[in-house]
Amino acid sequence: MKSSEKLAAIRQIMAAEQIAALVVPSADPHQSEYVTAHWQARAWLTGFTGSAGVAVVTADKAILWTDFRYWIQAASQIRESEFALFKSGEPDVPEFYDWIFENLSENEVAAIDGQVISRNQEKKYRDLWDIRNIGLRTDLDLVSRIWQNRPPMPATKAWDFSTRFAGRSRAEKMHNIRESMNAAGAGWYVMTGLEDIAWTFNLRGSDAPGNPVNIAFALMGSEHAQLFIRPDKVDEQLAVVLAADNVQMSAYKDIFCALGNLPDKACVLLDPDMVSAAVFRAVNPACRIIEKTGPATRLKAVKNDIQIQHLRDTAVKDGAAVTEFLHWLATRDAGGPVSEISAEEKLFNLRSRQADFVENSFDPIMAYGPHSAMCHYRATKETDVQMKNTNMFLTDSGGNYLTGTTDITRTICLGRPTLQQIQDYTLVLKGHIAVADTCFPRGTRGFQIDTLARQFLWQQGMNFGHGTGHGVGFFLCVHEGPARISPHPVDVALEPGMLMTNEPGVYREGEYGIRLENMVLVTKARKTAFGDFLAFENLTWCPFERELVDTALLTAAEIQWLDQYHQQVFDVLSPHLEPETASWLKSRTAPL
Amino acid sequence: MKSSEKLAAIRQIMAAEQIAALVVPSADPHQSEYVTAHWQARAWLTGFTGSAGVAVVTADKAILWTDFRYWIQAASQIRESEFALFKSGEPDVPEFYDWIFENLSENEVAAIDGQVISRNQEKKYRDLWDIRNIGLRTDLDLVSRIWQNRPPMPATKAWDFSTRFAGRSRAEKMHNIRESMNAAGAGWYVMTGLEDIAWTFNLRGSDAPGNPVNIAFALMGSEHAQLFIRPDKVDEQLAVVLAADNVQMSAYKDIFCALGNLPDKACVLLDPDMVSAAVFRAVNPACRIIEKTGPATRLKAVKNDIQIQHLRDTAVKDGAAVTEFLHWLATRDAGGPVSEISAEEKLFNLRSRQADFVENSFDPIMAYGPHSAMCHYRATKETDVQMKNTNMFLTDSGGNYLTGTTDITRTICLGRPTLQQIQDYTLVLKGHIAVADTCFPRGTRGFQIDTLARQFLWQQGMNFGHGTGHGVGFFLCVHEGPARISPHPVDVALEPGMLMTNEPGVYREGEYGIRLENMVLVTKARKTAFGDFLAFENLTWCPFERELVDTALLTAAEIQWLDQYHQQVFDVLSPHLEPETASWLKSRTAPL
Repeated sequence: MKSSEKLAAIRQIMAAEQIAALVVPSADPHQSEYVTAHWQARAWLTGFTGSAGVAVVTADKAILWTDFRYWIQAASQIRESEFALFKSGEPDVPEFYDWIFENLSENEVAAIDGQVISRNQEKKYRDLWDIRNIGLRTDLDLVSRIWQNRPPMPATKAWDFSTRFAGRSRAEKMHNIRESMNAAGAGWYVMTGLEDIAWTFNLRGSDAPGNPVNIAFALMGSEHAQLFIRPDKVDEQLAVVLAADNVQMSAYKDIFCALGNLPDKACVLLDPDMVSAAVFRAVNPACRIIEKTGPATRLKAVKNDIQIQHLRDTAVKDGAAVTEFLHWLATRDAGGPVSEISAEEKLFNLRSRQADFVENSFDPIMAYGPHSAMCHYRATKETDVQMKNTNMFLTDSGGNYLTGTTDITRTICLGRPTLQQIQDYTLVLKGHIAVADTCFPRGTRGFQIDTLARQFLWQQGMNFGHGTGHGVGFFLCVHEGPARISPHPVDVALEPGMLMTNEPGVYREGEYGIRLENMVLVTKARKTAFGDFLAFENLTWCPFERELVDTALLTAAEIQWLDQYHQQVFDVLSPHLEPETASWLKSRTAPL
Repeated sequence: MKSSEKLAAIRQIMAAEQIAALVVPSADPHQSEYVTAHWQARAWLTGFTGSAGVAVVTADKAILWTDFRYWIQAASQIRESEFALFKSGEPDVPEFYDWIFENLSENEVAAIDGQVISRNQEKKYRDLWDIRNIGLRTDLDLVSRIWQNRPPMPATKAWDFSTRFAGRSRAEKMHNIRESMNAAGAGWYVMTGLEDIAWTFNLRGSDAPGNPVNIAFALMGSEHAQLFIRPDKVDEQLAVVLAADNVQMSAYKDIFCALGNLPDKACVLLDPDMVSAAVFRAVNPACRIIEKTGPATRLKAVKNDIQIQHLRDTAVKDGAAVTEFLHWLATRDAGGPVSEISAEEKLFNLRSRQADFVENSFDPIMAYGPHSAMCHYRATKETDVQMKNTNMFLTDSGGNYLTGTTDITRTICLGRPTLQQIQDYTLVLKGHIAVADTCFPRGTRGFQIDTLARQFLWQQGMNFGHGTGHGVGFFLCVHEGPARISPHPVDVALEPGMLMTNEPGVYREGEYGIRLENMVLVTKARKTAFGDFLAFENLTWCPFERELVDTALLTAAEIQWLDQYHQQVFDVLSPHLEPETASWLKSRTAPL
């Protein structure tokens, strides 16, 4: 179908259903970061294939909202269509919900598929539009009525993730979740997040690239748990293992029925930011609903001792691979020209040699020159460039190992750096060190740490547009909640055992970008008269760039931090490197 | 009535109304910081006179919750009563709402007077207790039925606050509020905050000590406004002035009627953190309610140019008074012993000499030695001490001038400081300077700034338990929202024109406390490729303590900041000081 045909067809259905505006967001029923092809209705309708955006269709308008990462790509992909591009974040560009608030008339109705917006999103839009008496229907999935050849839902095999890696058995995790449910007064817990389900039941799959999860829902009761999943994903042997822990199988869509059949007055815990409007609506209205972050989400974030030991080992393997890669780049002239895509292949090959490596944990960023100024650049055949010796190169990548997930960014200069590049790198590094080296009272939230990474940039009138850090899953998703280190006021305290990234940066559009990222583990530091204090244990081992550091901008303590870090990098990695790389690393990690 | 008689009487009424637990909080119908005697039901019932606490009475239990500031005072004041003290904030001490959640049985009912809890508090308790099917009634004011000789509501005269000081006319402010109402789609705006009302209508009064407000409600419509206030507070001349701006008078309690009579489908804006449960319930149920921070609250926080010029001048007057006070203290030996209370009187006298001074903006803190370790100490006849030459003295005070409100804290050492005192003072000062000297992107919220004040203390395993700063009213309340600089994630950006304090501290129980507070004004700093950057303009002029600064712990930039600040202190203040004080100040402000 051509774009114009799709729009004509959808408008016909909208007219029949008396829908004045159809909203098509970019989400799946699990609020997943990576939306599988089956749920990419917005991409199908608009032609824009980026990961973030919202389409709105009315009788005479078709609009696509997307953020600065995708303005160029989106403009190009919708050029032939009727869609107009609204640049989210630009001054005077309303959010789509404000646009509907302003452009629909009283008593008109907007529709959003309730399967792909969260309960809280639905509530937010409904509360707003209600002011102008604009209606909202979330019980219609209009796009699916005209979507021919829609890709099927993924159906890879689910498999049992060994306690040897997970560190805790399924039974133990369910016990802990039920303790949390009891404390909250809940008899039932509705689980829709794919990582929560994978973690709780020690299951893995490959339904999304980089995210070893299975498409499923789950319902945790006080004695039994139900897993709603395509039957062909679970083989008999696994079903037996799960049944032994009182986990029963049902078909994926049976969650709706099961929620409707919950006993009257049952107390049901669910996370309104995760659970879809459709799932929320399916709960027996005679139940009492407790809306809060799910116990699995909170428990999953705190890594156990076995996981932590795996993570320390994994960071060494991964650091060795990235250091081999940086050595290869530094000596690349001998082997002919290197492009961004060939660099990506090289690093993948180096990681693949490491024990227990499964896949990249996300699409790696290999960005030379101006590409590195785009936070989320991915090299494609169209954009790929040969790297010359005149600019910065930013590489942000990670591996999914059975022994943990990694995430690391380094920025190097190919050729002679400018003074501005050196100053920028040094200011970013100062922010990185300030976070790495901090000590903070128990109870501190990530938004309190975030500023430490930015303070030196701010003083120079600079800043970066992303968070300083995110949680990281364990052989799960590289971005994991609920804790973050960012300006967003996410009211979740950092707790010992949480695995986070520390990745300040700076981006000069059209010139270059810099980002320096290590993984850090929240640990207990000391107890004083003022209470318990926590700190970060560094996990990532890989050298920073001596040529890009202006020691005149560093304090004595910062220089000492960097020298000690480099000494450890050499000590930890050198036994795992090719001799030539080890000797190169020796000079790269010498004291400043 | 004796305490036992009060409890017996209230339990009789509870039984008759089938109330299992009565909750008596410490608030008035306006969520005021200073609760006037008329609304101090909790103090009347329990005998505990501190500002914060919650009482819960059941058939066989009577419990008082209060925080660490009041544990000693509360224990002493309730000793003769049946009340047990629950220390809020101690591990394993539940909040009162959790205690009710755990201790009431299904189908039992708790009661809280809906006049003195906010809409959001009511919602929070109701949602929680509903899980266990515990009811909540907010339509009963049981204490008033047995409260004999209850103090009347204050009824000082309201008066017109000149535009010469306010900087903007009542008509202009109402116009700006109506613009905000229009943008939000609201035809009506319910105002219950006393400072919001005072600011909007350019009215002042003296219904609460330190807070020149009038007890009132207001209802803003698109053409007219209604002020609900005791008729004897507004004389004829003022009523005429208000009527000229389409502001009509009604009796205080008529707000309930007026809200019930709002037209069906009217859109009503109110702040659910400010508006009481009773006021919320009074709104015609056929209205649409928009719950958000009120326009007056937001607009009031940004001071206009005329106010800012007044504030700069006021800070000089106030700094001169405090500097004279510090000089008097430094040379006090000649005049005989000084007690905390006599110090309070001395400073009040010095402020009283300044032009346009009206009153203290809050009960001043004059705290010697261990008293200074209590954040909110107030010297009384029982606690007053003569100051010796062996410990720290903390003075936190402010004035309410027609030309603005001030708030300043200095800590000095009487006698020879210990090494620990010097290190503590220097770390607090480093935090103060980090905030004073920062530069931050437009859009930054106070919780992003807060950590700058703590970072040096954290590194030493230290911290302080209050926020780094709060908004300050203009000849209004010394604590003013909506912006704060604190670890609490209050999602309000700092905007140019906002008046804030910068007051990090550190407190060693039983030894001493340190706090260093200046007022700062948010200003535009620069525009770069990364956007607009803001900074703080320092307003407060008063020396820091050279003897308490360890220069070895300061960076060159910090020393430069302090030397420059001290030079300005001398330049700005010396023309306004007694010659002897000026000459003393010269040596106190010499470069380090």
